[in-house]
Amino acid sequence: MSTTPDSAVRAYLTLHREAFLEDLADWLRIPSVSADPERAGDVRRSAEWLAAKLTDTGFPTTEIWETGGLPAVFAEWPAGDPSAPTVLVYGHHDVQPAAREDGWHTDPFAPEIIDGKMYARGAADDKGQVFFHTLGVRAHLAATDRTAPAVNLKLLIEGEEESGSPNFPALIEKHADRLACDAVIVSDTGMWSKDTPTVCTGMRGLTDCQIDLYGPDQDIHSGSFGGAVPNPATEAARLAAALHDTDRRVAIPGFYDGMIELTDRERELFAELPFDEAEWLRTAHSHATLGEAGSTTLERIWARPTAEVNGIGGGYQGPGGKTIVPSTAQLKLSFRLVAGQNAAAVQQSVRDWIAAQLPAGIRHEISFWGATRPCLTPLDHPALQSVVRAMGRAFDQKIRFTREGGSGPAADLQDVLGVPVLFLGISVPSDGWHAPNEKVELDLLMKGVETAAHLWGDLAETWPTA
Amino acid sequence: MSTTPDSAVRAYLTLHREAFLEDLADWLRIPSVSADPERAGDVRRSAEWLAAKLTDTGFPTTEIWETGGLPAVFAEWPAGDPSAPTVLVYGHHDVQPAAREDGWHTDPFAPEIIDGKMYARGAADDKGQVFFHTLGVRAHLAATDRTAPAVNLKLLIEGEEESGSPNFPALIEKHADRLACDAVIVSDTGMWSKDTPTVCTGMRGLTDCQIDLYGPDQDIHSGSFGGAVPNPATEAARLAAALHDTDRRVAIPGFYDGMIELTDRERELFAELPFDEAEWLRTAHSHATLGEAGSTTLERIWARPTAEVNGIGGGYQGPGGKTIVPSTAQLKLSFRLVAGQNAAAVQQSVRDWIAAQLPAGIRHEISFWGATRPCLTPLDHPALQSVVRAMGRAFDQKIRFTREGGSGPAADLQDVLGVPVLFLGISVPSDGWHAPNEKVELDLLMKGVETAAHLWGDLAETWPTA
Repeated sequence: MSTTPDSAVRAYLTLHREAFLEDLADWLRIPSVSADPERAGDVRRSAEWLAAKLTDTGFPTTEIWETGGLPAVFAEWPAGDPSAPTVLVYGHHDVQPAAREDGWHTDPFAPEIIDGKMYARGAADDKGQVFFHTLGVRAHLAATDRTAPAVNLKLLIEGEEESGSPNFPALIEKHADRLACDAVIVSDTGMWSKDTPTVCTGMRGLTDCQIDLYGPDQDIHSGSFGGAVPNPATEAARLAAALHDTDRRVAIPGFYDGMIELTDRERELFAELPFDEAEWLRTAHSHATLGEAGSTTLERIWARPTAEVNGIGGGYQGPGGKTIVPSTAQLKLSFRLVAGQNAAAVQQSVRDWIAAQLPAGIRHEISFWGATRPCLTPLDHPALQSVVRAMGRAFDQKIRFTREGGSGPAADLQDVLGVPVLFLGISVPSDGWHAPNEKVELDLLMKGVETAAHLWGDLAETWPTA
Repeated sequence: MSTTPDSAVRAYLTLHREAFLEDLADWLRIPSVSADPERAGDVRRSAEWLAAKLTDTGFPTTEIWETGGLPAVFAEWPAGDPSAPTVLVYGHHDVQPAAREDGWHTDPFAPEIIDGKMYARGAADDKGQVFFHTLGVRAHLAATDRTAPAVNLKLLIEGEEESGSPNFPALIEKHADRLACDAVIVSDTGMWSKDTPTVCTGMRGLTDCQIDLYGPDQDIHSGSFGGAVPNPATEAARLAAALHDTDRRVAIPGFYDGMIELTDRERELFAELPFDEAEWLRTAHSHATLGEAGSTTLERIWARPTAEVNGIGGGYQGPGGKTIVPSTAQLKLSFRLVAGQNAAAVQQSVRDWIAAQLPAGIRHEISFWGATRPCLTPLDHPALQSVVRAMGRAFDQKIRFTREGGSGPAADLQDVLGVPVLFLGISVPSDGWHAPNEKVELDLLMKGVETAAHLWGDLAETWPTA
């Protein structure tokens, strides 16, 4: 199995670690904040910096891809063997906003290494985790004495992920031919913890909507009319309350249709993780757990679909009281989906259910904002097994499995390109994504480089797909 | 029974009708808008105008009573017979705001008589209905050849009713001795319609509250945490939804404790009223009726207690979607109460019920704004029978019974003075209270005068309470 001698990789990394960190720090100095229109030039400079670095790394093709908004970077390095599998690495080079006065101990755009951690906006999300692929592929070549990687390697590093990737679906539709591959490796996630390295095997999907309810044509007097006409705020509440049964299962008929249940093996694997409920609640800023009966907290956030009230409003919300039956009310709901569920079918189930719940005298409108599909890679998928083996060699430890409860553009890649999506990340929850004092742990960053160095050879050897 | 010859009263009214209407128009020209601080001088001028008019009418005592806000008028006219019952007439001399540009066809403070109706702000609510007592008591004296009324007659005409009577409870507490009486006659309500004269026998009480729910310490990501922690917006909705059972009965244990159910006779009397649901729905600006199973619409708004959602809010209410589990949510609830219910006990039932409904991880606070007691006069109360007889003579028609679904300061009089509250009003729903083109129908106004002229003699003869 060991196509790349582990010791050769480690020797190469020791030699190049310092320059690699200096380069990363250079990139992190570019404040590529996609949300800030005044930083558009910096996002472009970040793309150009990366493209140049990928050319230096050896990628024969590097291109800046324009979008309706901020630019992405594409790079391609064909394998020597044309029958090798093709892998597309996804990441992003834009970052969240950051300002010293938000509580940073250092300048967020002047990287500093303190106690083995590099502090800077984007250190973990996502520049550090994109950048480990540069040294990774060089180490792969050096240790195996190759001039081209063992797989056809493509990189797509977008520039608007922190702004919701508004132009990403159009971009990948447009370049679907160039992006064609056998698997996507998303390099924009994390692990369970420093001591428990993990691979993520899927993300939940998402569809969300707004429901407007209309009752009386204007607010009316609760004394003169209350108790005798329908109240849209009450009906909005009844809808929101009826979303779940007494077991906190989603009560919309058809909602669970087609969903892939967790296997016993997957439940065992989740249960192996050293879950500390008190610690998790601190992360959730919450004071108790609550969810679907029969599922653990990890199962609830990773592998169960949900219906969540994101917002509710109706009637008087100012100070004091106002004795009215309100004219209108509104609900904003989001549904997290898991593999096997069909977003369009869920939307139709929600529409049908709502129409059936409301009494005469309440008119309603419902608008869905969109849908992101769930993605899930089976535990026995050969590419996933390669990632696990490569990480296991880098970390010298058993690799466990997680999933991600959120939803992201990875699913767009799965949809458009029609291939499995795998997740390779070395960030840990304490890295402070989107928060002050974001950092990456240098030991883990180098494990990422090492994983990348082992991965391509393993994939080419064990998954001859082409 | 006829202590006052009806024909003598009518002759007296014919003689004085023109001057009476001219006087009322003078009073209506004073824009005594209590809600407008710039009109405070006009409200005082209105009080002084009324006090002078009551002195002219013959009241030996007329006083301006200062409050923490705008002044009230008190007048007292002892009966010749010291054993006669004592009656306190309640009304108000302040009016709602009005401006020509709101849709008035005439100047709201320049009364005009068109087609037998006097148009002006306050014509029906409430100056017209206060003013009919001046000519009423004079007609009573003239027709019975008395120099003092047959009852000890007191008037309390407040100046802040249209601003929520903020100083009224303190005022009546302070003057409880002067206001002592056997019954209160509220002269500030209406009848079913011109063709169906009615007496109101009660008002619903009211207590309302705000409930704040606290979940996560900040809004959290619905992907990372949704489905595994309690959501305060969901819990607010579940509370609001659980207020009613499937029969739309209030489901709070203890809520109905002690309430006086409608008798079969009262239900029959309600059913005798010519209720047109389509017309009523237009008045309610609503598109269907909905309420407690087993009760008619009139029973629901007049004689059943209710729980109403006046406002609900939580999470994101802006444009588009935001996939969060919100940190907080809020409910504003009002409860209409009927006779026999105890507001303090209802508040405690609500507190206990809410505390028992909420899951771990949701903290809550509840604040009640206050409580107005319900009031109800039994159909067989002798004073009510007098009102019915007096109206019957004035209208020459069967008098039917209504109740009022709203709540008002009348209940404060009942509470502080410990006496029954009766309602005598001749306004009709089309009179446009609080709306443009408020008017009073002159025929009905004169029926009010005539009722007042008959009432005191009937009361003194049939209800020798003292």
